[in-house]
Amino acid sequence: MLKGIDPLLTPELLKVLAEMGHGDEIVVADANFTAATLAAGKPVIHLPGAGVERASQAVLSLLPLDAAVAQPVAFMQVSEYPAGTLSALQRRMLDQLQRGGHAQPAQCEATERFAFYDRVRDAFAIVLTGEQQPYGNFLYKKGVIGEALVP
Amino acid sequence: MLKGIDPLLTPELLKVLAEMGHGDEIVVADANFTAATLAAGKPVIHLPGAGVERASQAVLSLLPLDAAVAQPVAFMQVSEYPAGTLSALQRRMLDQLQRGGHAQPAQCEATERFAFYDRVRDAFAIVLTGEQQPYGNFLYKKGVIGEALVP
Repeated sequence: MLKGIDPLLTPELLKVLAEMGHGDEIVVADANFTAATLAAGKPVIHLPGAGVERASQAVLSLLPLDAAVAQPVAFMQVSEYPAGTLSALQRRMLDQLQRGGHAQPAQCEATERFAFYDRVRDAFAIVLTGEQQPYGNFLYKKGVIGEALVP
Repeated sequence: MLKGIDPLLTPELLKVLAEMGHGDEIVVADANFTAATLAAGKPVIHLPGAGVERASQAVLSLLPLDAAVAQPVAFMQVSEYPAGTLSALQRRMLDQLQRGGHAQPAQCEATERFAFYDRVRDAFAIVLTGEQQPYGNFLYKKGVIGEALVP
């Protein structure tokens, strides 16, 4: 364990978050997600003891989201219901992202299942949680930390 | 996820449990344990989202304990108190092991800290949990599953 670091962040996940640069993306996925196949050799960090909300909280405690894009967050759209339908978990997550000052709901893009897979193929890493609720898959695009460009 | 398999068992941990043979030992340790150093290249599986009780429950759902030794379980003795003093976690764990039919308290060996380290050096793998309580370190010796020797 390290001072001030969420204990859910394993050494490997901490290294991954630090290695990621501006625009790189990390996925926090539910327990049934096609992680190994889509990762194709990129890091898959297993966090079976945590759900998507808790794992996202830990990741976003260190990872700045990208302010340079309109939607730095994406999540897998529920297929079986009309467009715009959010699962219970997705509603809680959008609320958590808003309350945490990470992203407004309009900054989170609902993405069709296979389009989401395509995006995941280009991601830097996948955190596979123990989340039991389907469609519990979120993607976060890393932003920057630094001095203000214009003081 | 797999049918009937505790979802806390990551693919790596599942493989480790399957690879272990009779007499091999696995350690379930607290979050501050010296895992990487003592493992010295052997598998360290990070389960920061679970404590020692939950992780032990998952491990022992598949791992048979060794009936060929008097004490197939060992745990790190509390140093600061008189011999025989059990931490709150250790009391709960001994109770859990008994209730689960895994081991009686007398089959669990309290081991001095540095003697425990020596034993861990010979272990097959270490599961590093998110357990916040100190002295939350247990070791399990694998037994056998098979036909009765004398019917």
